[in-house]
Amino acid sequence: MKIDVLSLFPSMFEGVLNESILKKAKDKGAASYSVVNFRDYSSNKHKSVDDYPYGGGAGMVLTPQPIFDAVAELNKNNPEGNKPRVILLCPQGERYSQSKAEELAKEDHLIFLCGHYEGYDERVREHVVTDEISIGDYVLTGGELGAMVVIDSVVRLLPGVLGNEDSPVLDSFSSGLLEHPHYTRPANFRGLTVPDTLLSGNHAKIEEWRERESLRRTYERRPDLLESYPLSEKQQKWLDEWRNS
Amino acid sequence: MKIDVLSLFPSMFEGVLNESILKKAKDKGAASYSVVNFRDYSSNKHKSVDDYPYGGGAGMVLTPQPIFDAVAELNKNNPEGNKPRVILLCPQGERYSQSKAEELAKEDHLIFLCGHYEGYDERVREHVVTDEISIGDYVLTGGELGAMVVIDSVVRLLPGVLGNEDSPVLDSFSSGLLEHPHYTRPANFRGLTVPDTLLSGNHAKIEEWRERESLRRTYERRPDLLESYPLSEKQQKWLDEWRNS
Repeated sequence: MKIDVLSLFPSMFEGVLNESILKKAKDKGAASYSVVNFRDYSSNKHKSVDDYPYGGGAGMVLTPQPIFDAVAELNKNNPEGNKPRVILLCPQGERYSQSKAEELAKEDHLIFLCGHYEGYDERVREHVVTDEISIGDYVLTGGELGAMVVIDSVVRLLPGVLGNEDSPVLDSFSSGLLEHPHYTRPANFRGLTVPDTLLSGNHAKIEEWRERESLRRTYERRPDLLESYPLSEKQQKWLDEWRNS
Repeated sequence: MKIDVLSLFPSMFEGVLNESILKKAKDKGAASYSVVNFRDYSSNKHKSVDDYPYGGGAGMVLTPQPIFDAVAELNKNNPEGNKPRVILLCPQGERYSQSKAEELAKEDHLIFLCGHYEGYDERVREHVVTDEISIGDYVLTGGELGAMVVIDSVVRLLPGVLGNEDSPVLDSFSSGLLEHPHYTRPANFRGLTVPDTLLSGNHAKIEEWRERESLRRTYERRPDLLESYPLSEKQQKWLDEWRNS
């Protein structure tokens, strides 16, 4: 997968793209990254990229020209008809989800647009961008962190990137329930102990404990996830118990 | 505000903490950052930080000792009773929101715990952590990007960090509605034009256009936000129009 990022702060990406899974994906040839400062595409003699908003008001708005031209340049080597997704990170976008990550992981080429300041000229949204994504209902300074979040969540789904030890299938959200608690050695850490069941060696009991704790955690913390979850008879019984206690 | 981060990949933070608003906040003395590798606190002779899960299964679990001791060390210079918030980034956490950012912005000291691998020993959650936060319903490789997101959203709210030009009050989510579209020069960019109202100089009309477009965008993209929004009579009329058309 080819990943291009347009940002006014390219060096923000250095640490993140050169560590952990994103580095591993690059080393394995599963993903390549290029971060470009779209200021370089400004045809203005001062290389400016923003201007005052029409109609007045606080803040500066990103002008269309540098972004239109930077995206056209990134598209130049793509065969006709093979259009990349152009993803704008912004609070007005569709809320990002694991299913969107899975959808984007099927693409060959993604372009991320990271804005700063008050926002983008609307013509960028209407004529360049294919997807507007918001990573959550909170305000960030720019689109860079959102782009990193989307890149990380997509790249780890590419074939061959995760080793067996990281098995993505078992993660929260993929199963529809939150994960059960984990414990590791020592069994007694400064007086704090591990539940007996996990030390019992009885695998059927351990599986049941995990299923129950996974459901309990979801019930306590994210009951909204249960609305679309197909409960087994046993799970329904547990839920009824907790609701009645 | 003092911000400490515990991570196994400290260099991921370099680019982000040294650019844009986070750098500005540091330069102005509003925030200080320290990123510590908690592997340094492992009392194990191999400096290991993870071990197999009790009860079997895939993945490794972070052991309690390095994290307990690293947090104790970061707490050492805090006056008795002045406990920092210790924030764990994980998919099972409370969903992060702008109101949580505002709550955290009132604190003097935040500690962020960024895990990798399958997860944390539950005793870390129960005895060290004060807040578990999830930045969204998607799976990331580690807690680092989540910590950066929370840090950015909190630090920009600290007094004196944003200049007037960035006025946080006008952002999406702060007002309860999504922002209206923005336009800047040129008025005609390669045949794509700016709405006449914005060029009219009629400020009352411009304000009404913005209010209407802000409501329309929220209605089209995030109708859930309208459930808790106190609509004016005029806004209710617009909504009725769109619903009937």
